[in-house]
Amino acid sequence: MIIEKHLEDHVIGESHVTTGRTVTEADIIMHAGQTGDWYPHHVDAPWCATQPFKQRIAHGTLVFSVGIGMAASVINPHSMSYGYDRLRFIRPTFIGDTIRVRTTYKAIREHKTPGHGLLVEGVEVLNQHDEVVLACEHLHLVKRRPGAQTA
Amino acid sequence: MIIEKHLEDHVIGESHVTTGRTVTEADIIMHAGQTGDWYPHHVDAPWCATQPFKQRIAHGTLVFSVGIGMAASVINPHSMSYGYDRLRFIRPTFIGDTIRVRTTYKAIREHKTPGHGLLVEGVEVLNQHDEVVLACEHLHLVKRRPGAQTA
Amino acid sequence: MIIEKHLEDHVIGESHVTTGRTVTEADIIMHAGQTGDWYPHHVDAPWCATQPFKQRIAHGTLVFSVGIGMAASVINPHSMSYGYDRLRFIRPTFIGDTIRVRTTYKAIREHKTPGHGLLVEGVEVLNQHDEVVLACEHLHLVKRRPGAQTA
Amino acid sequence: MIIEKHLEDHVIGESHVTTGRTVTEADIIMHAGQTGDWYPHHVDAPWCATQPFKQRIAHGTLVFSVGIGMAASVINPHSMSYGYDRLRFIRPTFIGDTIRVRTTYKAIREHKTPGHGLLVEGVEVLNQHDEVVLACEHLHLVKRRPGAQTA
Amino acid sequence: MIIEKHLEDHVIGESHVTTGRTVTEADIIMHAGQTGDWYPHHVDAPWCATQPFKQRIAHGTLVFSVGIGMAASVINPHSMSYGYDRLRFIRPTFIGDTIRVRTTYKAIREHKTPGHGLLVEGVEVLNQHDEVVLACEHLHLVKRRPGAQTA
Amino acid sequence: MIIEKHLEDHVIGESHVTTGRTVTEADIIMHAGQTGDWYPHHVDAPWCATQPFKQRIAHGTLVFSVGIGMAASVINPHSMSYGYDRLRFIRPTFIGDTIRVRTTYKAIREHKTPGHGLLVEGVEVLNQHDEVVLACEHLHLVKRRPGAQTA
Repeated sequence: MIIEKHLEDHVIGESHVTTGRTVTEADIIMHAGQTGDWYPHHVDAPWCATQPFKQRIAHGTLVFSVGIGMAASVINPHSMSYGYDRLRFIRPTFIGDTIRVRTTYKAIREHKTPGHGLLVEGVEVLNQHDEVVLACEHLHLVKRRPGAQTA
Repeated sequence: MIIEKHLEDHVIGESHVTTGRTVTEADIIMHAGQTGDWYPHHVDAPWCATQPFKQRIAHGTLVFSVGIGMAASVINPHSMSYGYDRLRFIRPTFIGDTIRVRTTYKAIREHKTPGHGLLVEGVEVLNQHDEVVLACEHLHLVKRRPGAQTA
Repeated sequence: MIIEKHLEDHVIGESHVTTGRTVTEADIIMHAGQTGDWYPHHVDAPWCATQPFKQRIAHGTLVFSVGIGMAASVINPHSMSYGYDRLRFIRPTFIGDTIRVRTTYKAIREHKTPGHGLLVEGVEVLNQHDEVVLACEHLHLVKRRPGAQTA
Repeated sequence: MIIEKHLEDHVIGESHVTTGRTVTEADIIMHAGQTGDWYPHHVDAPWCATQPFKQRIAHGTLVFSVGIGMAASVINPHSMSYGYDRLRFIRPTFIGDTIRVRTTYKAIREHKTPGHGLLVEGVEVLNQHDEVVLACEHLHLVKRRPGAQTA
Repeated sequence: MIIEKHLEDHVIGESHVTTGRTVTEADIIMHAGQTGDWYPHHVDAPWCATQPFKQRIAHGTLVFSVGIGMAASVINPHSMSYGYDRLRFIRPTFIGDTIRVRTTYKAIREHKTPGHGLLVEGVEVLNQHDEVVLACEHLHLVKRRPGAQTA
Repeated sequence: MIIEKHLEDHVIGESHVTTGRTVTEADIIMHAGQTGDWYPHHVDAPWCATQPFKQRIAHGTLVFSVGIGMAASVINPHSMSYGYDRLRFIRPTFIGDTIRVRTTYKAIREHKTPGHGLLVEGVEVLNQHDEVVLACEHLHLVKRRPGAQTA
């Protein structure tokens, strides 16, 4: 779905939550496959049983990539992904956990690109216990409304 | 390969570069599959031909996940991934580009976790023209040497 | 995205078109993998060069599954997929073709399930030349509005 | 295996049953990946637990694609897939169910293509309880025997 | 397809050839993914251009696994795979090459398992130039005919 | 990691063991997908329950490919894979088993290639009970040290 929104059309504080997705052993195998990261923390069950978490944990990059993908439901032609700040892995995600994503427009910042500004979107990946497992700030470079003044 | 290194064993300025990996159409299809992100920027060739980059571009989360995976060759039992700062997409990665990863120990920081500190590792994904396409700081929470003083 | 719509809320003649997706060799390999259908029509390039179409063609079930998936953007809790009628493969889809999907509400029919009716949605998969490559009727069993009369 | 059969070589009423295949969580994840259909009915276990079926169900297009693939064991150079009629999802398929496919030649019909006719093959996907979970009619356009009369 | 054959039912010298399959970049990516072998010989195109073969080559284990899979079309309940001898990589397989497999029953050998013998099946993977790229001997442990004498 | 070793640099008797990897249902589905081998021994759970092993077993080519991939951690530019001898499937690998690989340099042999010899590396795939499930000899064609005498 395509929805055009200029920088000024985003309401700070507005929040969305996605539907859920259960993280499976297959997701971990496929992510290990794509990235080449077969560390025992993700794929060696007996070894994990001897560690503090007692079981295999999803890759941080898996939870991040899937979370960002789940949050991407609407295409805005005036916006492009600029980067991420303060990406933190707060709790482990285990096989069988179900995650959903809460996004919140947190701030608008100046940017040197003429006619554009940075939209700071808070992204939190939540598990089935409503705990935050991953948090970051997604920076979007968004076109200002035609004729808008830069501060 | 398992190599034990305490926080103090990391030499600031030390740098490693991985071998290369050609990013393929299959990588993009599989990453779109895993994340559910089928935005036309990544998978609609004729539409991309009408856009500034003229061709399909790899997902930012793909270049990030693969880059982090390529850099992960040695398991250090005293270290765990804490998060990432200043993740930036600097240039697009196209189908057929070949990436490799340069990591550099940049700083050691205090951390509230007793007996631990933060190792800041600069990560740069380079393409076949030696251009940086993605950069970030990978934060590792690493155990200090037994008996080491916290500053 | 979740949007509640009862049977009567669908406007006959209303039509939607999705964004595009380029069908890749990787899609064919993955679909052959999932279904076990490695017929030479899909995966043997030199043999295909001796056949009328001159090149490998996507599986009918691939174009169908992807097309239905592309059209599925909104979750309606009052509706469930009942089946398909008149599924026809009209033109081949080749590697590199870009498909998009046009859906049109075509009719509403009585159904024996109390309080429900059948919504007939025409589905057409189009290629980059605006040719229909696949057509079918998707039947949805949809709840009637509370208090609605069955004819 | 290649077996040449003209339209007249098919015996109405002849039936075949395939070996079985257990439908796995990995199949659902890979099909969601290929089609982009991550509806909670297929991938959100806690939400499914609140629904009538109590658990995740396989995509209709997954059971259909895999069933058709399982039935495709012999290549007949005189035949091509024309389409499907009356595709119906009769019962859900759950993770761990084991399906097999029963095909039966049901009828031969005239077709406008010179020298060809339509072979109607009934396809039923059965689960481990011998229940039909999916049924459809597969239409094959098959060459008549050289010199055969069209009715 | 299930065909029962006892050890004595195999005719030495009998040979079969499969249909073809074009080896794709996607196959290599998926095999690298499954095995974790991302050696530059398989996935780094610019580096390969500096090497004797000038281009990426398929993993030996990929050509072997796919070749064995292509040859496995009939299930014989009296036979099980015992192992392989003299597996040799004779020529490289490149992206875009089309392979097919020729199997030949070469010998029957005694085996210590009561009532069984070893069937030695020669396996050759051929490319589109009819060159052998991989050869091995597949050893099958097969039940003797009831009442058959062991030599 | 790239480590240059000539034929003479390998110490007969030297042995390495990898970290572990749990074999999953997803691995079997993906390997069946890549090879086209959907034999019921690997994917039909109820049928397997009637067989001696009582459960689905991993493909021999899966355990072999993954085992060889797990053992491949260091790139030696003076060495290339020549083939395998005496590949034997000694015990079944079940879903949930965790394998690791022990490699041992066993012998050095003459070879007709000028300036090269064959390094025979024993490869054993072990499960979580320390049982050998697969064994073979991996033959590497390795360059001799410059100026080295051929016996």
